[in-house]
Amino acid sequence: MSSADHDHRGADLGLLAPAWAGTPAEEATGDAAFLQAMLDAETALSRALGAPEEVSARLRGAARAGRFDVRDLALRARAGGNPVIPLVADLRAGLDDEAAGWVHRGATSQDILDTTVMLVASRTRPLILADLDAAADHLAVLAAAHRDTAMPGRTLTQHAVPTTFGLKAAGWRSLVLDARDRLAALRLPAQLGGAAGTLAALGADPDLPARYARAVGLDAPDLPWHVLRTPVADLGGALALTGGALAKIAADVLLLARTETAELSEGRGGASSAMPHKSNPVHATLAAAAARPLPALAATLFASMAAEDERPAGAWHAEWQALREALRLAGGAGHHTAAATAGLQVHADRMRADLDLTAGLISSERLLAALAPRLGAGPARDLLATAARHAGGTGLPLADVLAGRPELNGVLTADALRELLDPTGYLGAAPALTDRALRRTGRTSRTPRTRTP
Amino acid sequence: MSSADHDHRGADLGLLAPAWAGTPAEEATGDAAFLQAMLDAETALSRALGAPEEVSARLRGAARAGRFDVRDLALRARAGGNPVIPLVADLRAGLDDEAAGWVHRGATSQDILDTTVMLVASRTRPLILADLDAAADHLAVLAAAHRDTAMPGRTLTQHAVPTTFGLKAAGWRSLVLDARDRLAALRLPAQLGGAAGTLAALGADPDLPARYARAVGLDAPDLPWHVLRTPVADLGGALALTGGALAKIAADVLLLARTETAELSEGRGGASSAMPHKSNPVHATLAAAAARPLPALAATLFASMAAEDERPAGAWHAEWQALREALRLAGGAGHHTAAATAGLQVHADRMRADLDLTAGLISSERLLAALAPRLGAGPARDLLATAARHAGGTGLPLADVLAGRPELNGVLTADALRELLDPTGYLGAAPALTDRALRRTGRTSRTPRTRTP
Amino acid sequence: MSSADHDHRGADLGLLAPAWAGTPAEEATGDAAFLQAMLDAETALSRALGAPEEVSARLRGAARAGRFDVRDLALRARAGGNPVIPLVADLRAGLDDEAAGWVHRGATSQDILDTTVMLVASRTRPLILADLDAAADHLAVLAAAHRDTAMPGRTLTQHAVPTTFGLKAAGWRSLVLDARDRLAALRLPAQLGGAAGTLAALGADPDLPARYARAVGLDAPDLPWHVLRTPVADLGGALALTGGALAKIAADVLLLARTETAELSEGRGGASSAMPHKSNPVHATLAAAAARPLPALAATLFASMAAEDERPAGAWHAEWQALREALRLAGGAGHHTAAATAGLQVHADRMRADLDLTAGLISSERLLAALAPRLGAGPARDLLATAARHAGGTGLPLADVLAGRPELNGVLTADALRELLDPTGYLGAAPALTDRALRRTGRTSRTPRTRTP
Amino acid sequence: MSSADHDHRGADLGLLAPAWAGTPAEEATGDAAFLQAMLDAETALSRALGAPEEVSARLRGAARAGRFDVRDLALRARAGGNPVIPLVADLRAGLDDEAAGWVHRGATSQDILDTTVMLVASRTRPLILADLDAAADHLAVLAAAHRDTAMPGRTLTQHAVPTTFGLKAAGWRSLVLDARDRLAALRLPAQLGGAAGTLAALGADPDLPARYARAVGLDAPDLPWHVLRTPVADLGGALALTGGALAKIAADVLLLARTETAELSEGRGGASSAMPHKSNPVHATLAAAAARPLPALAATLFASMAAEDERPAGAWHAEWQALREALRLAGGAGHHTAAATAGLQVHADRMRADLDLTAGLISSERLLAALAPRLGAGPARDLLATAARHAGGTGLPLADVLAGRPELNGVLTADALRELLDPTGYLGAAPALTDRALRRTGRTSRTPRTRTP
Repeated sequence: MSSADHDHRGADLGLLAPAWAGTPAEEATGDAAFLQAMLDAETALSRALGAPEEVSARLRGAARAGRFDVRDLALRARAGGNPVIPLVADLRAGLDDEAAGWVHRGATSQDILDTTVMLVASRTRPLILADLDAAADHLAVLAAAHRDTAMPGRTLTQHAVPTTFGLKAAGWRSLVLDARDRLAALRLPAQLGGAAGTLAALGADPDLPARYARAVGLDAPDLPWHVLRTPVADLGGALALTGGALAKIAADVLLLARTETAELSEGRGGASSAMPHKSNPVHATLAAAAARPLPALAATLFASMAAEDERPAGAWHAEWQALREALRLAGGAGHHTAAATAGLQVHADRMRADLDLTAGLISSERLLAALAPRLGAGPARDLLATAARHAGGTGLPLADVLAGRPELNGVLTADALRELLDPTGYLGAAPALTDRALRRTGRTSRTPRTRTP
Repeated sequence: MSSADHDHRGADLGLLAPAWAGTPAEEATGDAAFLQAMLDAETALSRALGAPEEVSARLRGAARAGRFDVRDLALRARAGGNPVIPLVADLRAGLDDEAAGWVHRGATSQDILDTTVMLVASRTRPLILADLDAAADHLAVLAAAHRDTAMPGRTLTQHAVPTTFGLKAAGWRSLVLDARDRLAALRLPAQLGGAAGTLAALGADPDLPARYARAVGLDAPDLPWHVLRTPVADLGGALALTGGALAKIAADVLLLARTETAELSEGRGGASSAMPHKSNPVHATLAAAAARPLPALAATLFASMAAEDERPAGAWHAEWQALREALRLAGGAGHHTAAATAGLQVHADRMRADLDLTAGLISSERLLAALAPRLGAGPARDLLATAARHAGGTGLPLADVLAGRPELNGVLTADALRELLDPTGYLGAAPALTDRALRRTGRTSRTPRTRTP
Repeated sequence: MSSADHDHRGADLGLLAPAWAGTPAEEATGDAAFLQAMLDAETALSRALGAPEEVSARLRGAARAGRFDVRDLALRARAGGNPVIPLVADLRAGLDDEAAGWVHRGATSQDILDTTVMLVASRTRPLILADLDAAADHLAVLAAAHRDTAMPGRTLTQHAVPTTFGLKAAGWRSLVLDARDRLAALRLPAQLGGAAGTLAALGADPDLPARYARAVGLDAPDLPWHVLRTPVADLGGALALTGGALAKIAADVLLLARTETAELSEGRGGASSAMPHKSNPVHATLAAAAARPLPALAATLFASMAAEDERPAGAWHAEWQALREALRLAGGAGHHTAAATAGLQVHADRMRADLDLTAGLISSERLLAALAPRLGAGPARDLLATAARHAGGTGLPLADVLAGRPELNGVLTADALRELLDPTGYLGAAPALTDRALRRTGRTSRTPRTRTP
Repeated sequence: MSSADHDHRGADLGLLAPAWAGTPAEEATGDAAFLQAMLDAETALSRALGAPEEVSARLRGAARAGRFDVRDLALRARAGGNPVIPLVADLRAGLDDEAAGWVHRGATSQDILDTTVMLVASRTRPLILADLDAAADHLAVLAAAHRDTAMPGRTLTQHAVPTTFGLKAAGWRSLVLDARDRLAALRLPAQLGGAAGTLAALGADPDLPARYARAVGLDAPDLPWHVLRTPVADLGGALALTGGALAKIAADVLLLARTETAELSEGRGGASSAMPHKSNPVHATLAAAAARPLPALAATLFASMAAEDERPAGAWHAEWQALREALRLAGGAGHHTAAATAGLQVHADRMRADLDLTAGLISSERLLAALAPRLGAGPARDLLATAARHAGGTGLPLADVLAGRPELNGVLTADALRELLDPTGYLGAAPALTDRALRRTGRTSRTPRTRTP
């Protein structure tokens, strides 16, 4: 980037985006990264077209992002609607005629820009996956360590029946792996078709796009996909799903970290500008923040599939910034989730204490199951509902309320009642489900690509 | 449905939805279909739990949607926030005590409702796929028939270089197959976990969910997924992608059917309330209409992944209606696309005539490629830009403008120029790409499911 | 509705929508209501055009929704893409020639359908406003009653400084009034323009639309707005804002009702299908559920503003169902908010107890302000941060931790410290702000309409 | 910005955003502008709190964005989740103790950041309005000039009845004015409430926020609105409506500029990287592109209204980047609309020629109206539908087809028929509606603010 960039007052340097500033995905998706990918897309084209090696070498030498003025390109991009047009002019201007003649030969701007977007995505993907893998690893450790740690299961905000923190962490991990699998399975194809996708100026060779894909390091396209936007929509969908997966984890961490609950805390919370005591779950907050816009960004990308003609006037242009932001947000959500899970403090004692908060009500389902065969389902349900209301209203332990009920004489001994009311004895298959979930490993294979016979 | 339903003035009977009214997907996603699926989910549970066959038979006999009052259930659903609670009460009320005791045993409402949603999706999917397959078949015929039919390629609204209608139709088909593949690959798992997903009231048997899935005819879940909403988000994403794929086709049909272009028309267009001559491309219109809300509906479903605790207060409830509408819209878009492509009239003569609309300008890329090696790239580009402006401004054919240019003396004969200006000679690999695209077949296999070793 | 409707298995009778089933807004937006509004739009047109009174009377007699078959109209709507075309045919068929000749004279389907949508909105609006007003009234009572009820203020999930429940309720009310004001201010114009908005078949009288608006009971349009969709977008925006306002209330109620917090509860909570003790905040849950899809529905409506030509092929058709669902969801959110606030139990004792949960830390800002002038800002901040960490780590009250600190000797007496640590003494302007907020009344005036001089 | 910014490879300098790069709105919403607004918010606070003038002067001297390192602030913002915390530290560090003591006194980060967002919005708004005003002015000129220029009205892609370009341009202008009015009417309030919105550390003075608003140059808030997000949602809604209004104009320009239609062209079209003859409607393309993501961004902002507690963990943080991008996109759409309308070429001859494209069918509504009273409505409609089908099928002019129909003997003379078939004689009230629309002027007043008595 030349000096002209430095004075640009409109620059976005991450000031409003603590959710992704400083993450690997941010740098991999900056304008500099896009510029370099555009240049890589151009040089790979000359290779795929068979340019002499010494020409390719000269081209590679010229095609370094640092030699170009990003801001100037951005401003000149307005004339034709995309940055490839001025870039080709500048790239050619810095080359001898022979080499210049190989630049952008037979291509259209969209060939380069679509390939660029996929290159950037393919370079950002491993960075996101690394954070997802780290989070999955942290969660596996937590799930195993807390395989048998009882805590309240909560439904519609209320204590329901006991569960374990191990199962919760294992469930979070399975979401991370779902996101990982979908991102890893994405096909990221190169684009090459020429002005209207017929390869007419590219020798009319239907095998050229695959050669180009190899040269540039991307998947081979089935067809030129200028207006067949499945790759972009798939990417948007996978990023939105990643955001959703991480948003669930963040939502739970934030709830369990609330002052009243404090079953979880982030190892080193965030500070406040006004209150010296505050220790906020800042990683979970930023992961939650990063996840929120992703569904809407994916919606923009899905809507851009309605790409009319051989190149749409607007739908294509609207993809670029949305896709960049989606990559950054997914990367940011992954990064902060990895950090949150790395340092997560699990307060098993608080979990245990919270199981007693309802003074036995959390065991009502278990009691019902025990009493129904003896009292009949209806009477058992009525008895427990009445007792629960009484316990809830008076604050008396359910055990005490039930102890005085004549219906239970001869039905349940005091010892049996005490055992039924022990929440740690009603964890169901939570530990076994945790074990099962932890046997799942990250998948690395791709979706079997669509093949023509 | 009982008579109480009939007086319900708030009913949605499709009056505002010509995009999906009367489609197979509509009926498969109506309240009656959801009710039957809920009942099927309940009866399958008793089977999976090992109810005696004669009990199951009594249960199946009772579990017919027509015996229940949908509207009454809808109103009573408000008390607990979902329709399973009143349904279980009504189902039990119609049974002897033994059979009633097997109903909903150990389950939570979400087990039944999530299973119901997946059942409805699994019953609607083949209906949507059938329309997608029909559309793909029609498009294969069109693509093959018009493999060599030249037409203008258009970029940013302007004629660019020639293409073929065959390639366009083949591209549409590839989008339809993309949608088909993604829908077909979806895993649609049953749900079973009990109150907080631990299976505590279900015998704590971690293999029970898989048995239940077999009993109800759905995929086996890896874990109870009450708050791991990947299946719903995947479904939303695949439906949005389906909408996007079909929206592209509709957008092109609508543009090419415009009165000024008329390269395509629907076999039997729609009428107007005011103008006797109108013949509107109504199937494409309704397909376009159906596709428009799908990205936003998918966004709602992606956002619902942030499902807190063991059952979220709101995120879950917001899925149902969004998912139903998404299924209907995708079904409607597929249905109208099948109809539009079945009856599509291709006016090859208009396509051919339109190639001449710019009086040669559509061949400028080809001319540039021919002249650049002889005149130099820069001079050739300048010559053509000047000539194009002159031709565009005066309406003169480019051939006439160029005929008088001294630079071309000895460079191009008149015959060579005439040949270069023939748009039907510049179709590139369009026919070959069409052949390649048509070799792709619909994929029926599923995404390899995530397996634990 | 005729008997044919009854067998329609695809009907949506509210089974999946406890968030709006049974609300006034549901009935006001059902197909029957839309059908009646279409008929009203047709009869008003003949009046505005000057039909003889006895013809109008015959027309009104025929134009009763119950005489038409909604489902049949829905199916026949597919042919032309909207339900007006078959409705006009049926309406004419039931009339003598003279009266039939006045039906739909000079109009286009969109005139009737746009007017219908606005009529339905205008009939649903007071129902929504009534629930908003009820909620605002309940909240005013709560805010006044709890003007001085101290509770923890929470930021980023952690206790921050004290606030009052009065201020919280007053803030909720101000959001309800914001929503109310925006809905009340909406202009809901009639539509009349004829085939392409020129009134050519309507006597070319530019004042006719205003007369029609009076006849049908809607606002006068500035211009035919077939493709100037501001009224629809404004409506979508106001409904999304309504949803957002109510979502905030629901979010707070749900958090404060959590088992660990229990500062609020709904008077009569919702039941569970499995757990006899559960009492869920079901109204807040359903209000939250209703609010969730509204932003995406508004996005669909905003996107439909890109309405090409004189009538768009798809953008218009996509509005109807989205708008109906948006009205129902806003109505449902309002209805359940009114119910939630009507029965809201405020547990002031729990609020008071929760203020002590952090054993003094909630007063750290106040302490800092008191100590900074005496110790210097930096040292005071350091002292308190250290003490807060110590208190947080050990569970010791902050008072005890500070009592032993030598820096405070001679700076704060034990009494002064005790007073500073009393959270009920640090409510700031919360009561005064509550008073101020309660002086705001619901505004009934409209946005000053755009006027031509 | 210091040198550290320059090396930041993740910077967004507009390379992917030709839709807003180089617009006034871009610069007004860059990180540098946000930084300066944060500093302005801090200095205004000290003034509102009554800092001595010489302290304020020192503070203003220090509070210049150029003295701070944006990138460093962005990275340090992650620790607490927002950039105010490190900024306050840096600002204090550059001041003497007295002045430092006035910085951020009693405030919370959200006070500063919310005020900043509103300041940036208030500084960007006039820039957007200027482009909207320019576009409205250009459109007024076009509408007046083409008050009587006949062109085909098109519905559902097909010629319907004639209209005028004047009415179309006047309609576009009315949308621009709708957007203008809504943006101009927005209240943009300052934010001040302290840690939990009670003003406890700010002297508990309920009138302070209004004084602060005056000091910083924003509207006075009714209440601290940390979690009452109406101002942000209103802004998002108005920007989405602006995008929708401009998207309609772009959609029409793009359609009418298509090669087959060419009724409009941009004065100086955009170039192509491959085709020397291309002249693309690039301003309309970029306006359309800018408008596309706005509905989804508004959806994100509406969803952030569900801001729990006294400061939400995520919903607030997600607003900043979405709001910035929304301002930029609305600014870009306005800028390119102003450019597109400034240079718009109207080809009235093509419009006139296109009226004849259907060889009379565009007059069928008029013919029907003329014939119905004489032949009866049904027979007239049948006659015309048959004739239209015949004309459409054979390409014969409708006049010729009708000339031979015996039903018309004695009903219509040849002259009368010829006159009825003249499309320029069937413009209805289009010119009068244009005049009326042009009488509307831009409104500058604000929505009457909500007042407490």
